[in-house]
Amino acid sequence: MIVMKPTATEEDIQAVVERIEGCGARAHLSRGEEVTVIGAVGDREHVQRLGLEGHVGVSQVVPILKPYKLSSSQFSHGRRTVIEIDGRRVGGDNFSLIAGPCTVESRDQLMTAARAVSDAGASMLRGGAYKPRSSPYSFQGLGQEGLRLLAEAKAETGLPIVTELMDARDVEAISEVADVIQIGARNMQNYPLLAELGRTGLPVLLKRGLSATLEELLMAAEYVLKEGNPNVMLCERGIRTFETAYRFTLDITAVPMLKELSHLPVIVDPSHAPGRRDLVLPLSLAAAAAGADGIIVEVHPNPEEAICDGPQQLYADQFADYVEHVERAAAVAGKVLSAAA
Amino acid sequence: MIVMKPTATEEDIQAVVERIEGCGARAHLSRGEEVTVIGAVGDREHVQRLGLEGHVGVSQVVPILKPYKLSSSQFSHGRRTVIEIDGRRVGGDNFSLIAGPCTVESRDQLMTAARAVSDAGASMLRGGAYKPRSSPYSFQGLGQEGLRLLAEAKAETGLPIVTELMDARDVEAISEVADVIQIGARNMQNYPLLAELGRTGLPVLLKRGLSATLEELLMAAEYVLKEGNPNVMLCERGIRTFETAYRFTLDITAVPMLKELSHLPVIVDPSHAPGRRDLVLPLSLAAAAAGADGIIVEVHPNPEEAICDGPQQLYADQFADYVEHVERAAAVAGKVLSAAA
Amino acid sequence: MIVMKPTATEEDIQAVVERIEGCGARAHLSRGEEVTVIGAVGDREHVQRLGLEGHVGVSQVVPILKPYKLSSSQFSHGRRTVIEIDGRRVGGDNFSLIAGPCTVESRDQLMTAARAVSDAGASMLRGGAYKPRSSPYSFQGLGQEGLRLLAEAKAETGLPIVTELMDARDVEAISEVADVIQIGARNMQNYPLLAELGRTGLPVLLKRGLSATLEELLMAAEYVLKEGNPNVMLCERGIRTFETAYRFTLDITAVPMLKELSHLPVIVDPSHAPGRRDLVLPLSLAAAAAGADGIIVEVHPNPEEAICDGPQQLYADQFADYVEHVERAAAVAGKVLSAAA
Amino acid sequence: MIVMKPTATEEDIQAVVERIEGCGARAHLSRGEEVTVIGAVGDREHVQRLGLEGHVGVSQVVPILKPYKLSSSQFSHGRRTVIEIDGRRVGGDNFSLIAGPCTVESRDQLMTAARAVSDAGASMLRGGAYKPRSSPYSFQGLGQEGLRLLAEAKAETGLPIVTELMDARDVEAISEVADVIQIGARNMQNYPLLAELGRTGLPVLLKRGLSATLEELLMAAEYVLKEGNPNVMLCERGIRTFETAYRFTLDITAVPMLKELSHLPVIVDPSHAPGRRDLVLPLSLAAAAAGADGIIVEVHPNPEEAICDGPQQLYADQFADYVEHVERAAAVAGKVLSAAA
Repeated sequence: MIVMKPTATEEDIQAVVERIEGCGARAHLSRGEEVTVIGAVGDREHVQRLGLEGHVGVSQVVPILKPYKLSSSQFSHGRRTVIEIDGRRVGGDNFSLIAGPCTVESRDQLMTAARAVSDAGASMLRGGAYKPRSSPYSFQGLGQEGLRLLAEAKAETGLPIVTELMDARDVEAISEVADVIQIGARNMQNYPLLAELGRTGLPVLLKRGLSATLEELLMAAEYVLKEGNPNVMLCERGIRTFETAYRFTLDITAVPMLKELSHLPVIVDPSHAPGRRDLVLPLSLAAAAAGADGIIVEVHPNPEEAICDGPQQLYADQFADYVEHVERAAAVAGKVLSAAA
Repeated sequence: MIVMKPTATEEDIQAVVERIEGCGARAHLSRGEEVTVIGAVGDREHVQRLGLEGHVGVSQVVPILKPYKLSSSQFSHGRRTVIEIDGRRVGGDNFSLIAGPCTVESRDQLMTAARAVSDAGASMLRGGAYKPRSSPYSFQGLGQEGLRLLAEAKAETGLPIVTELMDARDVEAISEVADVIQIGARNMQNYPLLAELGRTGLPVLLKRGLSATLEELLMAAEYVLKEGNPNVMLCERGIRTFETAYRFTLDITAVPMLKELSHLPVIVDPSHAPGRRDLVLPLSLAAAAAGADGIIVEVHPNPEEAICDGPQQLYADQFADYVEHVERAAAVAGKVLSAAA
Repeated sequence: MIVMKPTATEEDIQAVVERIEGCGARAHLSRGEEVTVIGAVGDREHVQRLGLEGHVGVSQVVPILKPYKLSSSQFSHGRRTVIEIDGRRVGGDNFSLIAGPCTVESRDQLMTAARAVSDAGASMLRGGAYKPRSSPYSFQGLGQEGLRLLAEAKAETGLPIVTELMDARDVEAISEVADVIQIGARNMQNYPLLAELGRTGLPVLLKRGLSATLEELLMAAEYVLKEGNPNVMLCERGIRTFETAYRFTLDITAVPMLKELSHLPVIVDPSHAPGRRDLVLPLSLAAAAAGADGIIVEVHPNPEEAICDGPQQLYADQFADYVEHVERAAAVAGKVLSAAA
Repeated sequence: MIVMKPTATEEDIQAVVERIEGCGARAHLSRGEEVTVIGAVGDREHVQRLGLEGHVGVSQVVPILKPYKLSSSQFSHGRRTVIEIDGRRVGGDNFSLIAGPCTVESRDQLMTAARAVSDAGASMLRGGAYKPRSSPYSFQGLGQEGLRLLAEAKAETGLPIVTELMDARDVEAISEVADVIQIGARNMQNYPLLAELGRTGLPVLLKRGLSATLEELLMAAEYVLKEGNPNVMLCERGIRTFETAYRFTLDITAVPMLKELSHLPVIVDPSHAPGRRDLVLPLSLAAAAAGADGIIVEVHPNPEEAICDGPQQLYADQFADYVEHVERAAAVAGKVLSAAA
C-alpha cells in the first residue's frame, strides 16, 4: 500500500504504477480527495522488495501483510501448537514450570537445586553451561563439564533439560544433553544459529531480544520453522525502556498479544527483568494470570553464594511454596501444571 | 556521594571537600586503590543542591537518599495508606474497581453505563467531562454539562465519582461533583495544578506520565502531599517504549515496586495501554494477581458509537462477567472487592 | 484506510462499509489476494473519529492523512515561516542564538550574563523566573522579582527576552516582559495553556516533550496556531531513551525531519540533554550543521555557584569563543547569525 | 559501594562487612545521619562478583569502577588510537569516508559504485556479501561470489574493503578479502564471534547494538581487545526509541561521549538510522561537526533498482557533491579527509 504525497503529479503516480507492474504485481489505485493510494497486489516477496519509500512523490509505504507466515495464527487456522517434551506438554491448557539455577556451578549446587525443583513439581530443569556475559572478565560457564552435570541431574530426577546455546559450533555437544535448546536475548537475531537449530528438530526456547518488537521475534522464530523444525516456544523476558528502577521492563502485554498473533506457546521469564528476588513472585503471578503457557525461573540452593545473578534467584527451600501460588494464578487463566504423563 | 576520577589531583579533592563544607555539610573521604570517593553528609536539600557534576576531577555524583519523603515507605514506617471514599476503602486488603465510560457523551449513555457498572458491583464510577486530546480538532468533552450528568449518575447509583481535572481554574467546579480528582498522564508534571489539589484535600488519582520514572511519579505525588493532602492514589497506565504492537506498554513491575517504595495505593488502568478491548481482560487479571489495589477501566453501553476510544471500552452488558474474573485474580493476591460499608 | 483480517467475512466487510457511509464518508474497496482493504474517503475529522480498530474482522486501521494542518509544510505550500522579534529574524537563512542563565538568581548574576551574551553577539536573552522542578523542595524561581530583573536586562542590553510560562494564570504578568514565551517539555501537552498562548499572539518557543513524537509536537503547535497565533518555534531538547550515559538523548534527526514536515522554525537546546558542559559545544555544532534555525543555550557567570543545572551551563567568559565556533557550523548549512536589523 | 537501608540493623551491616572481607576485599564504612554506606576496596573482579544486591538490609549497590579497561581513555593515558589501513589512517585528525553499496548485487553494480566512490575521494569501499536480514525470505547476500567481486573492486580502485561477518565459520574466507571486518548491530553481543576476531588481528568496525548502552558497546570492544587485537573502531548507527518518524534515532551525543570514555576511533553510519536518502546529508554534516572520526555511508549507482535498502542509498553520481559538503563540516571539527599516504 503506497500513499502518495498530496503534491504528487500524475507522472509520479504512473511511475509508481509502472514499477509495481514491472515486478509482476498488479497496481490498484484509490484516488481520494487529498491523496492517492496505490495498492500493490501480487507475490508477497516481490511486493515487499519494491523499495518505493524513497520514490519521487511517495509519502509513505504501509505494509499490509505480516512478514511472517509459518508462525502466524492464520497459518495454523487457529490451531495452537502443543509441544511434547519427554512426556510433558507445553501449550494448550498446560502450564509449564521450568526452574533451576542460572548457571551450573558444581555437582552439589546443581543436584540440590534439581531435587528441590523436582520435589516441588516443576516440569523441566534449567541450567546454563555456556553463559553470555557482558564482560569478558566474568565467569563464562563450566562448558562441557556443565553439560555432563546436567546429564547427571536428568538421570537422577527424570526432568527434561533446558540449556543455552551460543555458538553454532557447539550444537552437537549440547544436543546430546538438552531436551530444549534456549536461545538467549542477545542471540535472537543470530540468524546462522537459528537456521542451524531449525535443522536439528530439537525444541527451541527463543527469548525475545531486549529491544525486539513482537514482529521481529516472530521473524526470528520463522528462521527456525522455515528449516522444518516446528517446535518453537516464544519467551518474553523483559524489554529495555527508560525506567531504571529495574533492569528490564517485563512486557506483560506481549503474552496475550503473541497468543493472538501466533500459534506458538508463550513462556515468561520473571527472573531477569526485575533482577531482584522479591519481585519474582508478583511477576510470576501476573504472567500466569495473563495466560502464559509457562514460566522459566531461577532457583538456587544458596543464592548468596551464586557466581552470577544471585540477587534474582529464588531460594530452593522456599520453592514449593512459590509453586503453590503460581498454580493458583494459572488456574485463573484455566491452566494446570504440566507434569510427566 | 561524589566519585572522583582516577586522574583527580589532591587539589581537586580538596576543592570538592571545601565546596561541601562551604554549604554546611560534612565531607567524608574514602580513598580506594584506584579512586577516591567523598561522601557529603548533612542537610538533604543542601547536599542535593551542590551541583558538583561538572567540577574538575569529579567522575560522577551518586545520590544516596531518595528525593521524595512523604510518599516513601520509610516515612510511614511500613504502614500502608488506606483512603476512605464515601464508605469505600482504597488500599490494604481492598480491591477497588473504578469503571465507566471514557467520556460523558449524553445522559442516556452515562446512565446506562452507570447502572451496569453499579449492578456488577463496581466501587466507583469514572467519566470524563474535560478531555485532554492530542488534536485541537477532536471533541474536548461536555465540560460543565458533563459534570452535571455525573452528579445525576451519582445521585441515582450512589457511586462515588472519579473525573479528570486539566486546568487549575476548574478546580472549584469539579470539586463540587468529584469524589476523586484524576490527574492525567500529560499533566503528571503540571506542578501548579498538583499544588492546587494539595490544598483542596480531595482524593487524587495521579496517573504516571507516559515516560515518567517511578521516582518522578513519587515526586509528583510529593507536590500534593506537601500541601497537606494525604489522599493520593498512584496509577500505572502504560509507558512509551519502542514496541508498536500496542499504544503503550503496561509496566506491570511498577505495581510491586511502587508498593515497596511507597505506602500509597496503586491502581492500574488496563484500557489505555493496549487500546484494544481483547487485551483488557488479561491485563486486568495480571494487575490484580500482581497485587494492585484496584483497576480503573472503561465501559460503554455501545462502544462502536463512542465518541472517543471506542475500541478499548468494554461492553457494559459483559461487564458483570469481567468483574467475576477479576475478583478471582484479586483473591490470588489476597484482596477482596471494595464496596460501600 | 481499514485493513481487514484474512478471515473477515463478506458480512464483516459490509458492516465496515455501512459504518463508513453512515458517517457521511465514501467507502472504497480494494480486494487483494489475501486481504481486503477499505479506504474511507471524506471529511477528515469524521473519518478520524470512526474508531473501527475494535470492529469485527478489522486487522488494522492505517491513518493516511496527517492529523495536523496549519503547522504542515503542505499547508504553507512550501513557504517557510520567518518570525520577526524586535528586529531579529528567526527562520529562513538566519541562525538565532538565544543564551542566558537557566534561572534568574540575582541582579548581579543576570546582568553579568546578559552583558556577556550581548557582547558575544547573541540574538536574544533567556532566563527563567518560574521554574518547573521535579522536586517540590527545590528552588522554584524568583517569580515576579525575576521578571522585573529580566525587564531591566532588556533595557540595558536591548536583547529580546525569552522566558518560561507554567501557569495560565501568569500569562498577563509574563507577557509584559517576555518577547518570546517558552513552553517547557513538561507542559507540551498542557492544552489549556497552549490555547491561552494562542490567544495572546506572542511568539512561542514550544519545547518537545521528553517522549513526544514529532507528530505530537506538531499537534501541540496546532493548539497555538488554531487560536490565530502563527508565531511558533519548535524546539528539540532531547528525548528519553534507555541510554543512561546522559540525561536525555538529543534527537538530531528531528531537525531535518521537522523542517520537512513543517514550515515552522526549529531551534535546538544543547544544554539540557547532556546535562554536562563539555558536551554542549559538539552538540551545538551538530545542530547548526544539521540545519537548525537556532540554539537556546545556558550561560552563567559562575556555574559552580548556580542554584540549578550548574554543570551544564557555559562559562560566560568563554561564550564569545563558543559563538565563533557555532557560526562556522551554521555557515556549513548556509546560515548567518541573526542580529538586530 | 553498598548503600544500606535506613532500617538496616547493626547485624545487617556486619554481615555485609563479613561477606566483603570473606572475598579478600577491605570494607570501608561511612555512617551518615540517615544511612550507612560501605565501600568494598580490593580486586576489581572479586568486588564486582559480590552480588550483594539482594542481601538483607541492602538498599542499592553502586558500581564505582567502569567495567571496561582496555578500551577506556584512562587505560591509554589520554593517547588516542590511530589505526592504519593500507596507508589510510583512522582516528586523530583524520576523517575517514567509507562508502559503497549496502549489498554487493552484481559485478556491474559494484564496479560502478566503487569507481564513483573512489573518484570522489573516499577512504575505503564498503559492500556486504553476507547480509543479516530480519526475514528468512529476504535476499541473504551473494556470499562467496560477493567476496570475489569485492576483491576485484579493490584490485581496480586500490580502496581497502570493509565487509560484514556474521558467522564465526566464515572468518577465514572473509579475512582473505577484507581489510576491515564489520560486526553488525545484531551481532554486537555475539561473544564467540568477537573473541574470534580478537584472535585474527584484523581491524574491526564494531556497530552499536540497537539498544546497547555505550558501556555495553565498550564491553563488546573489550572482548576483541582482550584477545590481543587493538584495532577496533566503534560505530554509532542509531538506537531504538519510541519515535516512529524514522527507523532508528541517531544518537549524536554518543560521538563526543565515546571520545571522552574511550581512546578508540568513532565512526557514524548516517544511512541506516533514517532509512531515507534526504536525511543522510544533514546527519552526515552533524556527525562530522560533532567530531566523528569518519562516516560509513551507502552509495548505489541506481538505488531504485537496489535489492535492499534502496531508499536510503545515495546516488553514485551525486556522491562527489556530498563529499564536498561533508569535508567542510569535518573541517569545523578540525579534521581532514583521510586518503592513501
